[in-house]
Amino acid sequence: MTQKETIGFIGLGIMGYPMAENLLKAGNAVTVYNRTRSKAESLAADGASIAPIVADVARAASVIFICVGGTADVEQIAEELLLAIRPGALIVDTTTISPTASRRLAARFSKCGAQFLDAPCTGSKAGATNATLTFMVGGEKAAFDRARPYLEAMGKKIFHTGGQGTGLQVKLTQNLIGALTCQAMAEGFVLARKAGISPSLVLEVLQNSVARNPMIDGKLPLVITRNFAPHFSLKWMHKDLGLMLESANELQVPLPATALVRELFGAGIAMGHGEEDFASAIRVIESMAGVEVRED
Amino acid sequence: MTQKETIGFIGLGIMGYPMAENLLKAGNAVTVYNRTRSKAESLAADGASIAPIVADVARAASVIFICVGGTADVEQIAEELLLAIRPGALIVDTTTISPTASRRLAARFSKCGAQFLDAPCTGSKAGATNATLTFMVGGEKAAFDRARPYLEAMGKKIFHTGGQGTGLQVKLTQNLIGALTCQAMAEGFVLARKAGISPSLVLEVLQNSVARNPMIDGKLPLVITRNFAPHFSLKWMHKDLGLMLESANELQVPLPATALVRELFGAGIAMGHGEEDFASAIRVIESMAGVEVRED
Repeated sequence: MTQKETIGFIGLGIMGYPMAENLLKAGNAVTVYNRTRSKAESLAADGASIAPIVADVARAASVIFICVGGTADVEQIAEELLLAIRPGALIVDTTTISPTASRRLAARFSKCGAQFLDAPCTGSKAGATNATLTFMVGGEKAAFDRARPYLEAMGKKIFHTGGQGTGLQVKLTQNLIGALTCQAMAEGFVLARKAGISPSLVLEVLQNSVARNPMIDGKLPLVITRNFAPHFSLKWMHKDLGLMLESANELQVPLPATALVRELFGAGIAMGHGEEDFASAIRVIESMAGVEVRED
Repeated sequence: MTQKETIGFIGLGIMGYPMAENLLKAGNAVTVYNRTRSKAESLAADGASIAPIVADVARAASVIFICVGGTADVEQIAEELLLAIRPGALIVDTTTISPTASRRLAARFSKCGAQFLDAPCTGSKAGATNATLTFMVGGEKAAFDRARPYLEAMGKKIFHTGGQGTGLQVKLTQNLIGALTCQAMAEGFVLARKAGISPSLVLEVLQNSVARNPMIDGKLPLVITRNFAPHFSLKWMHKDLGLMLESANELQVPLPATALVRELFGAGIAMGHGEEDFASAIRVIESMAGVEVRED
């Protein structure tokens, strides 16, 4: 007999809010916590219980999701959860943080008799809203199986990638490839633009070649119209590039192109574009070349 | 009244041979020249006329295709064509060469009353065989319209990209993005492998994300099975990266990631992998990290 779990959700931001909403829609009892309480109150109208402090989530829930900003935020929340965590509880961290820090947290929760999974996701705001996220989950298989029905309420593809921290490793690989592809787009299109060729023509040709990719399909049209509204901000991608390099350094894997792209994205932040979508990294090359990738 | 053109084809390599074959199949009279005569003789069985020297192609043909190795090869052939070129002839160079050198050749042919197009293509051997190549054509619209029916006998998508040299600029942009995406794949997958994660699992996750691209779909399975048989060799991609940087330098467009990737691909050549597919660039990162991207 499977006893129904009580769910906790910490962090109701751009991603977390619709994710918690989907857990509620699936008929779960969900206790939510958010630093800014008004967002939690808005979810209460959909049936969520509000926890005034993080430790109250630990008291109320047997399966607790975390969806916050970065490593330091998750570490802070973990401290508060550990004050009141129930033995046998399962913590599922969907934040993209350092794999090393994540493994350390897993060990700490384990000492208290709790399970921990790193479960970063991809699909951005639209995927969170439509419950079509892809989750990459690291940790013990039994914990994964326990979390799975709830992940399925929020996502479409749920992968068990292996032991503790491996979900994060796969997520970092994905973002590494996304960031470097974005830089490739930046260098290629700035070069073509300065050679006097229409960016939308170059895009059309590329869409008939093996150089086609969803990054270019999705982002280049926004670049041409100079729409840098954030789907995933340059600041966050820069953070993730740092996590990749930290992980690579620990594993002794030199990543020359990743290191360079991190610096170039950092230049974009220094130019004041950190809050924009990371496609705005193209501004760094544009600025050096004295040209903008837009139609005449 | 359109008079039927007589076609010339110079260079019967991996790409050129099936391209010339498709021109013959479309019912054209084709005079071919190849440095190694035996390949030309094999095409003669399909109805091609053999020119013993390049100048004989110039004497026989009104529309002449070139498909050879690089800038120096095209320049050499152009010298020999100019000895006997017919006024009103059209030269269509499908080789990926320096845009600057291409513009220079166009100017020389123009002085002799001949037209010139840069018409590099993409689609590799399979596209050349199945007549599904994509052509990117720079030069005058009238010359493009004249070449079009013959390009359509060899390809599926034919783009007029603008003035002289622009076909090459677009091709270089495409290869730049291909090369940098390949480097992204290399760094991402070596990192994940050293973190102990199965490459085919990472591939499956990526195929459910915006980091998906045809480069990874096509090349990573070959990397895992250590099959580096050349579809497009590391040596040629390294050459094209050099052309990109040359063009970027002339246009004053700094390309930091492209420059780095050129050096890393050069390292792969120095390690003895120049004749392999350019996916073998992953060996550079593998060698530094002391791990290979293959299943256990």
